[in-house]
Amino acid sequence: MTKQIYRQRPSTRAVPQAGEPTSGPLTPEELQLSARNHSMPLEALRYDVTPPGMHYILTHFDIPDTGTRPWHLRIGGAVERAMELSLAALKKDPAITIPVTLECAGNGRSLLKPRPLSQPWVLEAVGTAEWTGVPLAYLLAKAGVLDEAVEVVFTGADEGIQGGVRQKYARSLPIREALRPDVVLAYRMNGADLPPQHGYPLRLVVPGWYGMTSVKWLESIEVVTAPFTGFQQHLAYRYQDTADDAGTPVSRIRIRSLMIPPGIPDFFTRRRSLPPGPVLLHGRAWSGEGAVTGVEVGIDGEWLPAQLEKPPGPFAWCKWTLPWVADPGEHVLACRGTDATGAVQPLEQNWNYQGLSNNVVQHVNAIVE
Amino acid sequence: MTKQIYRQRPSTRAVPQAGEPTSGPLTPEELQLSARNHSMPLEALRYDVTPPGMHYILTHFDIPDTGTRPWHLRIGGAVERAMELSLAALKKDPAITIPVTLECAGNGRSLLKPRPLSQPWVLEAVGTAEWTGVPLAYLLAKAGVLDEAVEVVFTGADEGIQGGVRQKYARSLPIREALRPDVVLAYRMNGADLPPQHGYPLRLVVPGWYGMTSVKWLESIEVVTAPFTGFQQHLAYRYQDTADDAGTPVSRIRIRSLMIPPGIPDFFTRRRSLPPGPVLLHGRAWSGEGAVTGVEVGIDGEWLPAQLEKPPGPFAWCKWTLPWVADPGEHVLACRGTDATGAVQPLEQNWNYQGLSNNVVQHVNAIVE
Repeated sequence: MTKQIYRQRPSTRAVPQAGEPTSGPLTPEELQLSARNHSMPLEALRYDVTPPGMHYILTHFDIPDTGTRPWHLRIGGAVERAMELSLAALKKDPAITIPVTLECAGNGRSLLKPRPLSQPWVLEAVGTAEWTGVPLAYLLAKAGVLDEAVEVVFTGADEGIQGGVRQKYARSLPIREALRPDVVLAYRMNGADLPPQHGYPLRLVVPGWYGMTSVKWLESIEVVTAPFTGFQQHLAYRYQDTADDAGTPVSRIRIRSLMIPPGIPDFFTRRRSLPPGPVLLHGRAWSGEGAVTGVEVGIDGEWLPAQLEKPPGPFAWCKWTLPWVADPGEHVLACRGTDATGAVQPLEQNWNYQGLSNNVVQHVNAIVE
Repeated sequence: MTKQIYRQRPSTRAVPQAGEPTSGPLTPEELQLSARNHSMPLEALRYDVTPPGMHYILTHFDIPDTGTRPWHLRIGGAVERAMELSLAALKKDPAITIPVTLECAGNGRSLLKPRPLSQPWVLEAVGTAEWTGVPLAYLLAKAGVLDEAVEVVFTGADEGIQGGVRQKYARSLPIREALRPDVVLAYRMNGADLPPQHGYPLRLVVPGWYGMTSVKWLESIEVVTAPFTGFQQHLAYRYQDTADDAGTPVSRIRIRSLMIPPGIPDFFTRRRSLPPGPVLLHGRAWSGEGAVTGVEVGIDGEWLPAQLEKPPGPFAWCKWTLPWVADPGEHVLACRGTDATGAVQPLEQNWNYQGLSNNVVQHVNAIVE
């Protein structure tokens, strides 16, 4: 045993407060979050279903060690029959499989000016998977939801501190959303058991809503008779203009489209190079508010309509393509989606205090030579 | 078709040059790389074998679309019998499975002061997998290496530009390393086909060497009679004091240990909280230069020897544990490994111009209350 005193790291820098917008440089805290949470490389837009390991991951706290502990799902609260279910029992219930595009509500945050301090996503916090499990509505029917129920609260096994509040990650859904036939308690992802980081053994998947709704490592479902006031519902994930604004809750995914950057990248800048001639621009578009009805591709400021393919499901992304004949020079490419509600991606940033749902159009710089 | 001119993003900032050390803030280019390349969350140190999707990934250029193209492995150069092999043919050759800890040579780079501009890893660019495939030595014996051979060059399908040089990613190995019985051409990872991001359909795995050696998306193996001078060998991955220093090549993984941060995290700062009382500190240690012979755990500057478990293979990490009785207050925890060569992790940063092999000890701040 050695006894050597090491220097403790001097802490001359004031630790910035999460959530506060800044015009300053990226902080070590943001880099640390960026290293932990991972996004989908843009070239993975080529896959209908995102291969395991490329789907985005946002872990609020730690990935819990759910593989080595006994596990049961508790269903209780305002129901006729509270129950506790094993994974084996859940797997005996009727199952559905649905393709769903999930996106983090914070996607696009790092591009905001000023920049709210939180997970600094660029544009790739997205992925599409095929989720298999029991419809939530089936289990709620089994439990018998009482008339006075207004919401259903979902609590995961992941625990931590946020905004000074110690908490297990928990979110709620209004009863009408919880009873949708396509909301699933998933135990399989792309045909295999859930990986630990995606919520093993069980997670909620709410098609069309931003990812924070789809609670991972699900332990408890509680039907409640008053709106849930937990941290992740009442304080986080709200569209606010200022810190004091009560705001409105974030729910469905806003229209977004992304392009696979054409050509080959520079290692550091990721700037693209390609030869002159024909190239098929392609990517994906999705919206939780309605079907994607159009994608326009911007080439040096001129917008051209892309061709859309039929998506594999109502809440899965659809592929778009646009043939382009690249002429020598520097080009700026962009894409902009529209959905059935008429919503169009904005050309300028969509700013709010927490940096949520910034669905600004993507720009790709390319040199043709 | 709409015709609306969008504003091109003004580019007032000079793009920094990759590789140049800076004392300035994190750049958007670094954040972009951090979003693309992903590290292993520290809590994944709990697994002997890293679950798919949590193993670190460094993609130099783009993940190539190898799943939809015909593929053959070419073996040529200074051999008696050049050959071209299909995946089906390779799978008929004798296979081995070995557990290997791979680490990126740039791990720890973002902690350096000044900080070389490149992928800004914190400390988690590591992972352990079981790789299955054909020993390289078996194929080289089949091809018949000529006496004048000095190195073997491995070229992948991934293409891009680095340092102004257009290239397919390529690295070489000295003949004596290429003929080691445990160097494998892997087509399976943890019992399944390689995921696209890990090199589908075939990659090299060189146990003990930093990850840049284990070329992914392998297309060509060429035996050469003079040292390879490709970009990734001759310019990148060298220990240099200055830009003008020719430097020495990076090869084997230096001793490193990491700890699973105990307790629960704060969302933004990742600072840990835990209750007073007994807690088992644990983590992993590895070295490519020799067996791990010791791990010391630092608790507020006092070093205590951890207990080591036998690793699953000579180039896979070993688990270490240390019981700790946490008393109330703020603590700084650390861990420091030693290997059979006598190498010990440094307490201060290990700086070089490209920011490689910074195996400085990890520090974890924890509040016990």
